[in-house]
Amino acid sequence: MTEQHDVVDIIRTKRDRGVLTDDQIDWVIDAYTRGVVADEQMSALAMAILINGMTRPEIARWTAAMIASGERMDFSGLARPTSDKHSTGGVGDKITLPLAPLVAVFGIAVPQLSGRGLGHTGGTLDKLESIPGWRADLSNAQMLAQLDDVGAVICAAGAGLAPADKKLYALRDVTGTVEAIPLIASSIMSKKIAEGTGALVLDVKVGSGAFMKTREDATELARTMVDLGTDAGVNTVALITDMSVPLGLTAGNALEVRESVEVLAGGGPQDVVDLTVALADEMTRAAGKDVGPDELRAALADGRAMDVWRRMISAQGGDADAPLPTAAETQTVVADTDGHLEHLDAMAVGMAAWRLGAGRARKEDPVQAGAGVELHARPGDKVAKGQPLMTLHTDTPERFARAQESLVGGWRIAPQAPARGPVVLDRITAQEA
Amino acid sequence: MTEQHDVVDIIRTKRDRGVLTDDQIDWVIDAYTRGVVADEQMSALAMAILINGMTRPEIARWTAAMIASGERMDFSGLARPTSDKHSTGGVGDKITLPLAPLVAVFGIAVPQLSGRGLGHTGGTLDKLESIPGWRADLSNAQMLAQLDDVGAVICAAGAGLAPADKKLYALRDVTGTVEAIPLIASSIMSKKIAEGTGALVLDVKVGSGAFMKTREDATELARTMVDLGTDAGVNTVALITDMSVPLGLTAGNALEVRESVEVLAGGGPQDVVDLTVALADEMTRAAGKDVGPDELRAALADGRAMDVWRRMISAQGGDADAPLPTAAETQTVVADTDGHLEHLDAMAVGMAAWRLGAGRARKEDPVQAGAGVELHARPGDKVAKGQPLMTLHTDTPERFARAQESLVGGWRIAPQAPARGPVVLDRITAQEA
Repeated sequence: MTEQHDVVDIIRTKRDRGVLTDDQIDWVIDAYTRGVVADEQMSALAMAILINGMTRPEIARWTAAMIASGERMDFSGLARPTSDKHSTGGVGDKITLPLAPLVAVFGIAVPQLSGRGLGHTGGTLDKLESIPGWRADLSNAQMLAQLDDVGAVICAAGAGLAPADKKLYALRDVTGTVEAIPLIASSIMSKKIAEGTGALVLDVKVGSGAFMKTREDATELARTMVDLGTDAGVNTVALITDMSVPLGLTAGNALEVRESVEVLAGGGPQDVVDLTVALADEMTRAAGKDVGPDELRAALADGRAMDVWRRMISAQGGDADAPLPTAAETQTVVADTDGHLEHLDAMAVGMAAWRLGAGRARKEDPVQAGAGVELHARPGDKVAKGQPLMTLHTDTPERFARAQESLVGGWRIAPQAPARGPVVLDRITAQEA
Repeated sequence: MTEQHDVVDIIRTKRDRGVLTDDQIDWVIDAYTRGVVADEQMSALAMAILINGMTRPEIARWTAAMIASGERMDFSGLARPTSDKHSTGGVGDKITLPLAPLVAVFGIAVPQLSGRGLGHTGGTLDKLESIPGWRADLSNAQMLAQLDDVGAVICAAGAGLAPADKKLYALRDVTGTVEAIPLIASSIMSKKIAEGTGALVLDVKVGSGAFMKTREDATELARTMVDLGTDAGVNTVALITDMSVPLGLTAGNALEVRESVEVLAGGGPQDVVDLTVALADEMTRAAGKDVGPDELRAALADGRAMDVWRRMISAQGGDADAPLPTAAETQTVVADTDGHLEHLDAMAVGMAAWRLGAGRARKEDPVQAGAGVELHARPGDKVAKGQPLMTLHTDTPERFARAQESLVGGWRIAPQAPARGPVVLDRITAQEA
C-alpha cells in the first residue's frame, strides 16, 4: 500500500463509473480511518458509490479493507461448529431470542453480536436488557466460554471489529448515503467475517417496516451479501422475508421478550414460530447438521430450547424467572367498524412503539423497558366495531397522542378477509463468481 | 425561508433524481453559508447534482440563492451601457487585455472582474501585475469612476459577491465535484449577475487545454449559462471556441502582455486578433451598438484601442511605457525533423508554462512575471530540422527539466500540413424557457 494515492482521483474514478483498483480501495479505507481522507471526501465517494454501484470484486475488496482496519475473532478452538444469523431489522423482530437457544440445542455454537436500536425497528440488546440483571457486555474470553458451555450467546459487539465501518456508518447516516447496497452489504459482512463464524444465515426483510422497501432491492442486497460471505469462505445463505406487517403480536422491549418466551414454551404467534423454525433450519443445515423442521418444532414444544434460553440468560446475570417490567399506562385502539382487519402497516406500528418510548432518537437516549404496542388482531382476523385492535404501553402518557398520530391510516378494516402470504418469500444461495 | 428543512431529505431527493423546491435550495445555500449544513453534507449533495443533474429552474434558483448570499453591484448610474465577457479559461488566453479597451472605444463600459490563476491556464490579474506599478485591487467607487471615465476596468473581484460560491468552490475542488455543469454555470453566473452587467458574452473553450474537453459538454455549459443570464435579464450570448492549441504564440504573464500590446498596435497573431474581434463584435451588439468587425479591426489598427489601454493601465497605477520583466534564463526546443508542425497540444504547453513558474500550485504561491513559453511555430507551419519550435523562459533553471517532460508527446511534425480550423466553432443564443 502506498501513500501516493490522490483521493480526488479515486472519487473521480467512481463518479465517472470506473472501477477502483484493490490498491485504491485499501488506501482510501485506511486513509479515512487515519483521518487523512476527510469526511467531505468520503461522503462524496459514498454518494458516487450509491449512485454508480460497485462490481462484485470491488465490494469484496472494500469489505476486506474494512475487516483489515480492526481485529479478527477466532472460533476455531470451539468443539462445536459456529452458525450465525443477521437480520436487516424489522418491526417486532424478536426472532434472535428464541432462535439462538433453539439452534444451540443441536450442538451448534451461536454467537449473536448485536446492537442497540436506533429508529423504529428496536434493538436486540434493548429487548434483553428488560430482563432484570441481564448484561450485554462480555469480554471475548467470556463470550467464548459461554459458547463452549451453553452454546448460545447474545451480547454487544466489541469496538474492535471493523472500526472503519463504525466511522463510515456515522458519516453515511448524516449524508443521505445509508441506502447504498454495496455499503450496507460491506458494513454488515465486514463485521460477520471479522467475527469468524463458519456459517451465516441472513434474514433480509422487505416491506414498509424494513430498510429495503422493494423485492428487487432486498434480493440485490441478499445476493451481494451471500456472494461476499461465500467469497470469504463463510457458508452463507439468505432468506427474503416479509416485513409489510409486524412480526408477531408485540413491538417493544419487555413485550417482545414475553412473546419470545411464549415461543420457547411451545406457543406464540404462528409467524414468529414459522420464521424461527425456517431460520433455525437454515442455520443447522449451514453448519452441516441434518435436523429438519419437525425436530426443530419438537425442541420448542418439549422445552429443550427453553432450557438453553434459561442457561443463556443466567450466564449473563439475568433472572429468567423474574417478572418483566410493565408500563405504567396503557391506552386501547378499537375497531371503528365491523369486518376483517385488511391492512396493518409495519412502519406505522414501529413508529408508534418508538414514540411510546420503546426506541431512541439519539444513540445516547434511554429506552423504556415496558413501552410498546401489543396487537390483538392480525391482518385477516374478523373484528367487530368497538373491539380492541391494539394496546399502547408507556410510562409517559403524554406520548400517547403522537403514537396515535403515527397509527392514522396504518390499519384498515374491510368487508372481506385479505389473502395472507407466507413470511418467507425467497431463498438466495451462493452462485459462481 | 424556514429552518425546518432536513438536509438529509434534500440530499436524498437529488440522489433519487428528484427536483429540489425553491425553498429547499434557498435554505441549503443559506444554511451552508452559515455552517449549519456541514461540508460532508454539501459534498454529498454536490456529487448527487454532478451525477443526476438539475433542471433549468433548479439551476436558476441555485444561482439566485448564491447571489442572495452576498452584495449586488449597480452600474445603472453610468452614462454608458455595460457589456462584460467571461472566458472559461485556456492556455495563452490573453484576450481580455486587448478586448476590454477595444470595446470601450465604442462608448461601452467594460467591467472585467477577474481572478488569479490556479493550475495550467493562468490568471488575467497575474498577467497585468507584470506591468510595473499596476494594481488589481480597487474599491467599488474607484471601479465605477474608472468605468465612467476610461470605460474599461480589469480588477480583482471583491469578496462581497456570492460568498456562498467561494465556500462551495473550495469544497468542490477537494471532493471531485468541480466538473458538474450546473455548479460551474451557477458559480460563474452568480458573480456576473450580482455584478449587474447589462450584457454578457461568454467564451466557452473546448479542447485539451480547456476545462471542457468535448463539444457536447462545452455546448451544454454554454447553453446553461446563456439560459441563466437570459432568465436574470442579462443580454447573454456564448461563443464556443477552440482550445486544442494554445491561443497566440505566448503562454505566461509578461509574455502575454507583450503579445496583447502587439495586437493593440495593429499586429499580433491572427487567432488572437480574430477571437478579440469576434468577442468585441458580440459585446458591442449585445450592448445595442452596431459597430461591426471592420470598424473593430480599424480601431485596433489606428491606435484608438491602444489609447484606451494606456489610460486603463495608468488609471490603476501602471506604467504602460515601462519595460516588461523578462526571465533570467531561456532554453530552446528545436524541431527533430523536417516537415510541418502537425500538432501542438494546448495542455502540454500550459503545463510547461506552469512548471516554468508562470502559474501557481497553491493559491498562496507567487508567480514569476517573466516565466512561460514562447512559440515560434504554429500547427500548419513548415519547419526544418534544428529550427527552434519554442523558447522556455524561467528565473529558476532547475524547472526546465520538468517543463520539458510535460512537452513530451505534446507536439508532432508530419510530412503534410494539417487542416487549420477556425477559432470560433459555434454561437449559442437565448432560447425560450
